[in-house]
Amino acid sequence: AIQKLEFSLEMIEKGNFEHFMLKEIYEQPKAIEDSLRGRMNASQGWIKLGGLDEYINRIDKAERFIITACGTSWHSGMIGEYLLEDLARIPVEVEYASEFRYRNPIIRDNDVVIAISQSGETADTLAAIELAKERQALIYGICNVIGSSIARASHAGSYTHAGPEIGVASTKAFSTQVSIITLIALQIAQVKGTIPTSKMREILYELENISKKIEETLLLNDQIKEIAAIYKDANNFLYLGRGYNFPVALEGALKLKEISYIHAEGYPAAEMKHGPIALIDENMPVVFLATNKSAYEKIVSNVQEVKARKGKIIAVVLKGDTQIAELADHVIEVPETEEILSPLITIVPLQLLAYHIAIMRGCNVDQPRNLAKSVTVE
Amino acid sequence: AIQKLEFSLEMIEKGNFEHFMLKEIYEQPKAIEDSLRGRMNASQGWIKLGGLDEYINRIDKAERFIITACGTSWHSGMIGEYLLEDLARIPVEVEYASEFRYRNPIIRDNDVVIAISQSGETADTLAAIELAKERQALIYGICNVIGSSIARASHAGSYTHAGPEIGVASTKAFSTQVSIITLIALQIAQVKGTIPTSKMREILYELENISKKIEETLLLNDQIKEIAAIYKDANNFLYLGRGYNFPVALEGALKLKEISYIHAEGYPAAEMKHGPIALIDENMPVVFLATNKSAYEKIVSNVQEVKARKGKIIAVVLKGDTQIAELADHVIEVPETEEILSPLITIVPLQLLAYHIAIMRGCNVDQPRNLAKSVTVE
Repeated sequence: AIQKLEFSLEMIEKGNFEHFMLKEIYEQPKAIEDSLRGRMNASQGWIKLGGLDEYINRIDKAERFIITACGTSWHSGMIGEYLLEDLARIPVEVEYASEFRYRNPIIRDNDVVIAISQSGETADTLAAIELAKERQALIYGICNVIGSSIARASHAGSYTHAGPEIGVASTKAFSTQVSIITLIALQIAQVKGTIPTSKMREILYELENISKKIEETLLLNDQIKEIAAIYKDANNFLYLGRGYNFPVALEGALKLKEISYIHAEGYPAAEMKHGPIALIDENMPVVFLATNKSAYEKIVSNVQEVKARKGKIIAVVLKGDTQIAELADHVIEVPETEEILSPLITIVPLQLLAYHIAIMRGCNVDQPRNLAKSVTVE
Repeated sequence: AIQKLEFSLEMIEKGNFEHFMLKEIYEQPKAIEDSLRGRMNASQGWIKLGGLDEYINRIDKAERFIITACGTSWHSGMIGEYLLEDLARIPVEVEYASEFRYRNPIIRDNDVVIAISQSGETADTLAAIELAKERQALIYGICNVIGSSIARASHAGSYTHAGPEIGVASTKAFSTQVSIITLIALQIAQVKGTIPTSKMREILYELENISKKIEETLLLNDQIKEIAAIYKDANNFLYLGRGYNFPVALEGALKLKEISYIHAEGYPAAEMKHGPIALIDENMPVVFLATNKSAYEKIVSNVQEVKARKGKIIAVVLKGDTQIAELADHVIEVPETEEILSPLITIVPLQLLAYHIAIMRGCNVDQPRNLAKSVTVE
């Protein structure tokens, strides 16, 4: 059957950018706006996701959400766990699709399974939702490609409106996934009454302004390029974050792995002391995501521990931060937002850092070795 | 107050071993036997954990288990998730203690929180259970040190009888934790009627014999030493496994990190295609845990993918395996057991591999740099 492609030529051309990946990083403000448009309104205080509305009674009765995905989408899912538990007070389990489907998972007919996949064709994720459907769970798909297999196999869902993503390393697909999950968590929280109206408004206003703050963050590109030049020859990187920034650490490390072939690993910052700190010496760059207002002192002490072992510290901090700035070798200052929205901002410098390091190492960033854009085999 | 130490001098001497870590690796068969003794009987088909008995009604009614821990104990917890969901059919959430406590977690009064800590003094884990206690959850502690803070703060619990663990990198504490969680999962499964009596007997018989199979696995020491000599200068390692072997991959990678300072990372084998495969070239050793009978063909295809990218393959397989043996550069053949018990066996070659590599690199295996035996700060 012939499928009409729903995008114009310019959408799949690089324009003024040298690579699709860089173009797609810069498209994030617009991609997020496109994904939010018509689905929320801050001044009127509403959120309306069509797919969610249709099944809201069943979703409201769910005792548990299971989020299943692979790769970058799994990181979006982890942020989804924090959001849904925090705002809507529903227990969430995030599962690697490949693990979930093979281990006779517990799926009950009142569970809601959220599947996340840019392409909508990820083989393990598709198989996981087929299994969950057999067990009568409600399947909610978050895909970017319209009419894709996972979108069709889901009972309901929301498309991310990221536009075509050509670079193999996912960027705007990630940030639009996170935006959609934020709306899902907020809408369910509203239905459940687990969020005060005033707090909801504050978050929605911030969400409406998030694109501007991402644009502001993109202005850091030259600074990040300078940092990249210093660390381009590193063999290893650690990425550390707490709370909402922990999945961002994982995603930032994955970007670097994918396109620069540097072994980068993400960890919850406090886990460092239970092993990874042994790796730290003067050759180890450590990227800290330190924009948290909650547990800020804890992350300061993690930074101190790395400094004491002579690790090189690149810290993403809030504008005006002084405490970490004193300790770090490099600080990247990003605009402040609601803490629950911070991944949308803190991921941006990490995408740029990975991009520049990969370019400086002569890597093919749009088509990294060994990787496929859409993993349709198991 | 004066506390009497409950162990004799020889227990804290190295005996014929050069290092405590090696001694403790070799003590695992006995440590597991000590931990199982009086708590199960295969021929009579019973399991009896005192701590569990006391609260069995409440535990039976739990809708969810939360396992919280740090480091190696967190890996034991992940195996616990697989065991409890698989055997007792209760949803389990495994949480890094440091993340859990700071994110306003969902804890309900009918939740059971299992805290795992060798020392029983891990600061984040202790704080996590204090929080859960305030919210009326039942706290079940799994500790090695008698009278430790976590043991005292728990409503109930089971001690691992590993004896004193001196090496900073945990070995026998891990395997006894896994043994105890296996008993917990089996006893709850028995109460809930989610396991057929015949299956229960089979598992208990295998558990009674597991120490002999670990002894058999320890005989591979010389072969593993040879493999260590080949890869001792590697800068990076990947560890891959599926199902019950996925947490083992994480734990194997952590051992290497902790004592050899090589950047090693564990992944669920199928996630490799979503990023880490980009790291693979002729310089990357990849350790596969491939003893699974379920999804065996899937792991074979993961091995093929690594081979196609010229990665060096060290595979832990079941005795007599031919398919993976043909593909791998090195095979380590271990005895077969029930798949749910396989972590107790497959971890052993990984502990030995880390040990020998660290020794060959001139590292202080018992006191690795930057690490403390018990992390009593946050």
